[in-house]
This record gives sequence, structure tokens and C-alpha cells, in this order.
Amino acid sequence: MRRLTELGQTVACAESLTAGLVSAAIADTPGASLVLLGGIVAYSAEVKVQLLGVPPDLVAEAGTVDARVAAAMAEGARGRLGATWGVSTTGVAGPGPAEGKPAGTVHIAVAGPSGTQTWPLRLNGDRAQIRAGTVERLLEVLAERLDAPVETSGPRADRRGTVGETAGPARHGGGRDDPVAT
Amino acid sequence: MRRLTELGQTVACAESLTAGLVSAAIADTPGASLVLLGGIVAYSAEVKVQLLGVPPDLVAEAGTVDARVAAAMAEGARGRLGATWGVSTTGVAGPGPAEGKPAGTVHIAVAGPSGTQTWPLRLNGDRAQIRAGTVERLLEVLAERLDAPVETSGPRADRRGTVGETAGPARHGGGRDDPVAT
Repeated sequence: MRRLTELGQTVACAESLTAGLVSAAIADTPGASLVLLGGIVAYSAEVKVQLLGVPPDLVAEAGTVDARVAAAMAEGARGRLGATWGVSTTGVAGPGPAEGKPAGTVHIAVAGPSGTQTWPLRLNGDRAQIRAGTVERLLEVLAERLDAPVETSGPRADRRGTVGETAGPARHGGGRDDPVAT
Repeated sequence: MRRLTELGQTVACAESLTAGLVSAAIADTPGASLVLLGGIVAYSAEVKVQLLGVPPDLVAEAGTVDARVAAAMAEGARGRLGATWGVSTTGVAGPGPAEGKPAGTVHIAVAGPSGTQTWPLRLNGDRAQIRAGTVERLLEVLAERLDAPVETSGPRADRRGTVGETAGPARHGGGRDDPVAT
């Protein structure tokens, strides 16, 4: 997270299956308070709706293990905490399936100044391994986005839709340039 | 957390220095979704005020490493998530002091149907050890309160002010019998 400190940027987390492990990982370095504003552990669907603003119709239609839910969670954390970046995790830690999806089915998202991206993950292992793998991959994609030049330089009007991601993430909705604290 | 499942009760977490580790520990068992609604990682003072309802005057007067802040955080998590129990952590993980208090100075709180209690902790070790020690002690005091008979039986009118704690916790404010979801 040294890169975030250098950039003077902040992060907020919205976590379902990881249940706090992303926030804890970011906080695991001295000086984390300059970067980590905090986050919302949204283990239940109700908390995803009430505290993160995930549309209830979306949860009713798609369940909670869904890329659009991950996107809405990341945007909700970013907006509610007023952070530069919002990151999220939702999926099935196991053991056994949930919502008809096998353990290891995970969606992660990063919401930032130029918009929101999601990545589907398919992880193997036990419950702890699936959660740890989710944390690891989320921190990787966040770091990649921090280093995408469009996020940190250039005129604002040029920032949208030109992030050079290579991992085939999906993009959601319009970018919101200014986080809104509530 | 099997005891919470047996009781049909739920928990919500408000975490500062532990930054998600309490939620993650509770979630670390299959079936945790019956018990853990979620939580708020309030690493910054602003998040403690905005998302948990900690009085800003209190933070201005006492800082964030304070038993009354811990109490307000636990009550905020309980109320906002509509859980039976709210638990909280705030303190100095180190290295080095914060707010003029040495590393290892920690306050934890449990808010429940009969009121809110806080415990001051003085922990030794490095950053990881202080955070792990905080999680361990908080889960211990929560388990003790679950087994306090006043919390689980008897007429409601008898519940206030009679919890048989032996560890010398402080009690704060009036008990609130019904969590309020927002």
C-alpha cells in the first residue's frame, strides 16, 4: 500500500466472503491510517442493501454472488466513506455451494475515479484458501489499477474508458470522478 | 460462535485497530452467516463518527482511544445492523504511541440487550500480536456475556444492571432492548 501513500489516495473496502480480511491486510502496515479509511463487512444480503446501497431488485434477481453486486458494493464503499478507491469481494467460501454456485465462485471489484471494474474468480481450496486467494487477487488488481497511467495523470476529461487493463475485467456504469461522503 | 447459533442471536462488529480481524474470526466457521450480519471497519475517526454515530464532541475531547468511544462504536454497530450484539475495538496497534498513548493501549466493548460494557486492555507485543490479542479477548468477553443467565432468560424487566460480570468492566448508558435497523 506504499503506492497509495505516495499518491495521497485512500481506500475503502466492502467485503462479503472475506469478512474483513482485505481491510486487515491493508491495515497490516504501519502508517495504514493514511490510506485505509475503513470499510463495511457486508456478510448478510440485508447489510449489502442497507449499508452499501446495493439495489434490492438486483439481489432479488441475481443473488449476491454476482459481478453487478460486487460493482455496487465497491461503489457503495467508495461513496459512503469518501475514498479515492472502493474495493469489494462477494462469493462462495464454502464448504459446499451457495445460491446454486460452487465454492470458489467469487467476484471482486475496484471502483475508482475513472469507473468500476469487476473480475470473476474461480478459486480452489478450502474455506481459508478461498478467502486468502480472494484477498491476494484483489490487492493485485488494485495495484495494477493504481499504476495505470490514466488514473494518476492526464486531464480529467481523458480518464474515462481508457484504462489499460489486460485481464479482461468488465466495466460497469459511468465513472464518478468525485467520491461523495455521506 | 456455536453458542450464538444455538441462541438464534446475531452479532455486528465495529473495528478500529483490528480492522476486520474480529469479523473475519467470527466468519471463519461454516454457518457463520446465521450469526454474523457484518460490521464496520472504522479505521479513521471520521468513519467512527459518520458510519457508527460516535459523538464528534467525544472524539474531539477524548480522542479515539477511549472506553466511551468503544462503547459508542459497539452500540452503533448493533443499532445500524440490527444485531443482538454489537462488539467493538479501538486502540493503539503500534509501533509507537498514538494520541499520546503507548502501543497496546486498547478498549473493547460489548453492547447487548441489557446494556453496554467496556474493558480496558494493556497488551504487549508487536503490531500483529496486539491485534490478535485484542480479537482473542473480545471473543472471550462476548462468550462470557452470552453465558450470563440474565441475557438469555428471565423477564425483560429484570435484565438491566444485573449482569454478573466479574472482570470489572465499566457499564455505559442505558440498555436498549431492541436493536434498530436503519
